[in-house]
Amino acid sequence: MSSATALAHPNIALIKYWGNRDEALRLPVNGSLSMNLAGLETRTTVTWGQSETDRLTINGIEVQGASLKRVSDFLDLVRQMAGLQERAMVESQNNFPVGTGIASSASAFAALALAATAAAGLELEPAALSRLARRGSGSACRSVPDGFVEWLPGSGDDDSFAISIAPPEHWPLVDVIVIFSSKHKETGSTEGHRLAATSPLQAARIADAPRRLEICRRAILQRDFSAFAEVVELDSTMMHAVMMTSTPPLFYWQPATLEVLNLVRQARAQGTAACATVDAGPNVHIICEESAAKTVLQLLSGLSEIQEVRLTHVGRGARLISS
Amino acid sequence: MSSATALAHPNIALIKYWGNRDEALRLPVNGSLSMNLAGLETRTTVTWGQSETDRLTINGIEVQGASLKRVSDFLDLVRQMAGLQERAMVESQNNFPVGTGIASSASAFAALALAATAAAGLELEPAALSRLARRGSGSACRSVPDGFVEWLPGSGDDDSFAISIAPPEHWPLVDVIVIFSSKHKETGSTEGHRLAATSPLQAARIADAPRRLEICRRAILQRDFSAFAEVVELDSTMMHAVMMTSTPPLFYWQPATLEVLNLVRQARAQGTAACATVDAGPNVHIICEESAAKTVLQLLSGLSEIQEVRLTHVGRGARLISS
Repeated sequence: MSSATALAHPNIALIKYWGNRDEALRLPVNGSLSMNLAGLETRTTVTWGQSETDRLTINGIEVQGASLKRVSDFLDLVRQMAGLQERAMVESQNNFPVGTGIASSASAFAALALAATAAAGLELEPAALSRLARRGSGSACRSVPDGFVEWLPGSGDDDSFAISIAPPEHWPLVDVIVIFSSKHKETGSTEGHRLAATSPLQAARIADAPRRLEICRRAILQRDFSAFAEVVELDSTMMHAVMMTSTPPLFYWQPATLEVLNLVRQARAQGTAACATVDAGPNVHIICEESAAKTVLQLLSGLSEIQEVRLTHVGRGARLISS
Repeated sequence: MSSATALAHPNIALIKYWGNRDEALRLPVNGSLSMNLAGLETRTTVTWGQSETDRLTINGIEVQGASLKRVSDFLDLVRQMAGLQERAMVESQNNFPVGTGIASSASAFAALALAATAAAGLELEPAALSRLARRGSGSACRSVPDGFVEWLPGSGDDDSFAISIAPPEHWPLVDVIVIFSSKHKETGSTEGHRLAATSPLQAARIADAPRRLEICRRAILQRDFSAFAEVVELDSTMMHAVMMTSTPPLFYWQPATLEVLNLVRQARAQGTAACATVDAGPNVHIICEESAAKTVLQLLSGLSEIQEVRLTHVGRGARLISS
């Protein structure tokens, strides 16, 4: 029996990934940019050879069905790389509540990729680890490198992975995550990615992506908040435009989502260094400079639909904490 | 002195007009489809030679500045057509409150075009009257013909006008107009049209327009509510996607707008023949079959932000009521 434990953070996409050109390999239709979210984390221990079948616990509770199948399929990739036959016990802990709409699959598969390979005696190069994590959940490849991260879409499996473009300390941004109580089951992102191509706007979103990536990359490197804010909001709106014009349409925005988007845009017009982005759910990520965080929290104080607010900083990549 | 009075209804676009390829001539980047709204109306009396300058009253109140200038520029076109030198007194009455976000420029310029030409002794063919109205406000050309109307974008001034594709009695749809109190001054549609080209999504919206027009035209002719609902909502969302991704972004949707859009979509999934469309403002037009109107009104009864609800039917085109 050999065991390893890894830690990874979720990430928030600044230029977003929506749609695959190869679903099995999770090769995206466009490149994306993100930052890791320190403070939110998944810790995963993988132990090979302890059980006769692959087993999975999340926050101490044994999980079966589709989630176990997805993990087990992923472990097949590791078994193949390591020449292993053993089954694995996977014990995963999130320090953020599941079901609040903070996607856990990115941190989950980044931590799992690292723990499973380390426990199997493999020491993967960063790019190879990112590629492997991508196979579990596309955006998981971005939780592998440090800080501000770009996922290079690549031409195939070999060159589709994420790299760090700046460490966490380069620009001490804050992500104020505004969590709403979700009233209904949403379409998951794996299913949602399949619908992207049905939108008459998706091709234009993809064609324009290199331009947005270039503006956002440069804004991060130059710490130009104004340019950053404009392109981050544009990119988020473009993704939701595609979602809302898919067949069937996906409306992840709730009225409260739009209320916060409007508030943040108005606050920025009055000088607050804050912008907003939304993933495949109703929650709003308000990315701001440290100096603006207090104003942002005040902005939110009057809103009744908010379930929880989480303040996070730019985080490191996936790392082993014991092996 | 010669005088004439005309009546015209506003119209709600089912496939929308957003962006001009020639701003001065108001030649649109894409064709559009609409229905006239009986129950809402503008009555305009034009009297030539009564005053020494062009004068305008709206609901009995004399108006100057930009609105008068726009009317006077329009009257120049009529003077040119008729070989007139006289100035005109224009008295316009709306039976719907201005500032509630129901666009009055369509009914206003349709009624003005008809009253001004009739009072000048001109009897224009329907197409010529629609072309003339277009010069005052693009969508006014659609308030000239009867019932369900298509604006053919044309290749130039000569062939850009609207035609009736079905009379009002063809399909007795209802438009339940949900009016919200607007909290801030919005960007007007003349200014908004100029921003359309700054959106990375506008070209795709335009390129896809013939497909949407074809689906909507066919759905109207066949009274196929399901196909109608899907394309009307898609088209509205596509226009707002362009607006929200313009530079600067135009967010006409308020949280309450989105709440109603979501409610209508859910109601339709449960069998209510209703769909929703939004123009350049926060109000929602719920287009439904007559049998569904009661359910739609019940749907709205729990919402606190609503200022007013107006129930309208498919209306006729512009007509003289005295001359």
